[in-house]
Amino acid sequence: MESLTIIKVGGKIVEEFESLEQLLTDFSQLKGLKMLVHGGGRSATKFAAQLGIETQMVNGKRITDKAMLDIVTMVYGGLVNKNIVAQLQARNINALGLTGADMGSIRSHKRPVKEFDYGFVGDVEQVDGEKISALLNLGILPVFAPLTFDKSGQILNTNADTVAGELAKELAKFFDVTLIFCFEKKGVLTDINDENSVIKQISSDKFEQLKAESVIQDGMIPKLENAFDAIRAGVKQVIITKADAIGKNEGTTIIA
Amino acid sequence: MESLTIIKVGGKIVEEFESLEQLLTDFSQLKGLKMLVHGGGRSATKFAAQLGIETQMVNGKRITDKAMLDIVTMVYGGLVNKNIVAQLQARNINALGLTGADMGSIRSHKRPVKEFDYGFVGDVEQVDGEKISALLNLGILPVFAPLTFDKSGQILNTNADTVAGELAKELAKFFDVTLIFCFEKKGVLTDINDENSVIKQISSDKFEQLKAESVIQDGMIPKLENAFDAIRAGVKQVIITKADAIGKNEGTTIIA
Repeated sequence: MESLTIIKVGGKIVEEFESLEQLLTDFSQLKGLKMLVHGGGRSATKFAAQLGIETQMVNGKRITDKAMLDIVTMVYGGLVNKNIVAQLQARNINALGLTGADMGSIRSHKRPVKEFDYGFVGDVEQVDGEKISALLNLGILPVFAPLTFDKSGQILNTNADTVAGELAKELAKFFDVTLIFCFEKKGVLTDINDENSVIKQISSDKFEQLKAESVIQDGMIPKLENAFDAIRAGVKQVIITKADAIGKNEGTTIIA
Repeated sequence: MESLTIIKVGGKIVEEFESLEQLLTDFSQLKGLKMLVHGGGRSATKFAAQLGIETQMVNGKRITDKAMLDIVTMVYGGLVNKNIVAQLQARNINALGLTGADMGSIRSHKRPVKEFDYGFVGDVEQVDGEKISALLNLGILPVFAPLTFDKSGQILNTNADTVAGELAKELAKFFDVTLIFCFEKKGVLTDINDENSVIKQISSDKFEQLKAESVIQDGMIPKLENAFDAIRAGVKQVIITKADAIGKNEGTTIIA
């Protein structure tokens, strides 16, 4: 099977012009088929504040009421997505910006209200791997914003790590997929204050052990759960690293 | 050649949920290949006001400074576009939201500063008819936001009537194109206060005459100029009508 690299980028790297420029240059030089999934949470929070809308979080997850849904639809689907696409086009990369609604590529359902009501948040139901593969095979580079939709035509906010993981799992049926989660650190660290404490490889046993010892905590836990989920579903390689290490052999590699 | 209907919708019809619902239902029932181009100016103006940004207009045209560019990128490319796409998907229409940056479909250049500086406004240079035809032939329905990009990767704001006209002209090489401009009135009126004064057919001679007599004025002038430009470039049929008349044989037909 042909190789496909799916890169998830979030945080300030996609939201600040200079770091985005460097990322897109590195990304455009990667060989083979590729795809980008981006976040945009900081811009959404900033823009909401300018509109006098307070961002509410529960367990690190954004509560998406109607006003916040409009904001993330604008910021993720419009501002961040279209600027990335235009910048890639300027590098002769045939980028196409997508949300899950476009071509019906990622259908979800509104998360049921249990302990919390997360509002207009979508849990992924189905990824249309055939349509996305067809785009890739036409030489198109999809750039996904973390938005999905339900069968009633409602746009829903969906975590970007989850979107990247679900895309990787489905596309593993069509390609040898490498999934790279980029974030601010060089990889999964044993000491959060020491960038040189990168764990080169992590198995699920080791993950459980480090979680029990509270060496791994907070936002790294769902990120790693997504990563193990992808590996178990047939994704060939999952790497957690710093954005400026794209294409280099660095970071933490997930092993089954 | 196969038929293609390009519909341009703007004004409150795309920005108010109920009228949009009806439009999309009518639109989804149209036979043959089709494409939508939308505006979103009222929502952009409203959002700008909420952010304390004043909308400046010259001769009915928006001045697009950096702050306004971000707003139109969010509102046109995100909020309006993605909600239309999701609503069409809910009607089993395989819609795909696009700006001119996506797949490099509409390249423009920043309008040169002459009498006025319109800011980040793009004049269309090139439409990639082959790529758009390929999408149409795959059963995809493109939904265009009125945004284009230049070769440096800069997003630019472009009038939606112009985008629709330029798409129609280029796609006339591949399809028998009908271009329908939808707006608030039943067609071009001889008396702006009388909805029954629709001019059934208008030639360029008649247009010049009615313009000289000030029967046709303001925003209708560039709309008609776009329409004649399209007819002269090989578009088969151009109609100006009310959105609720889509698919009916109403409105003003442009003749060469």
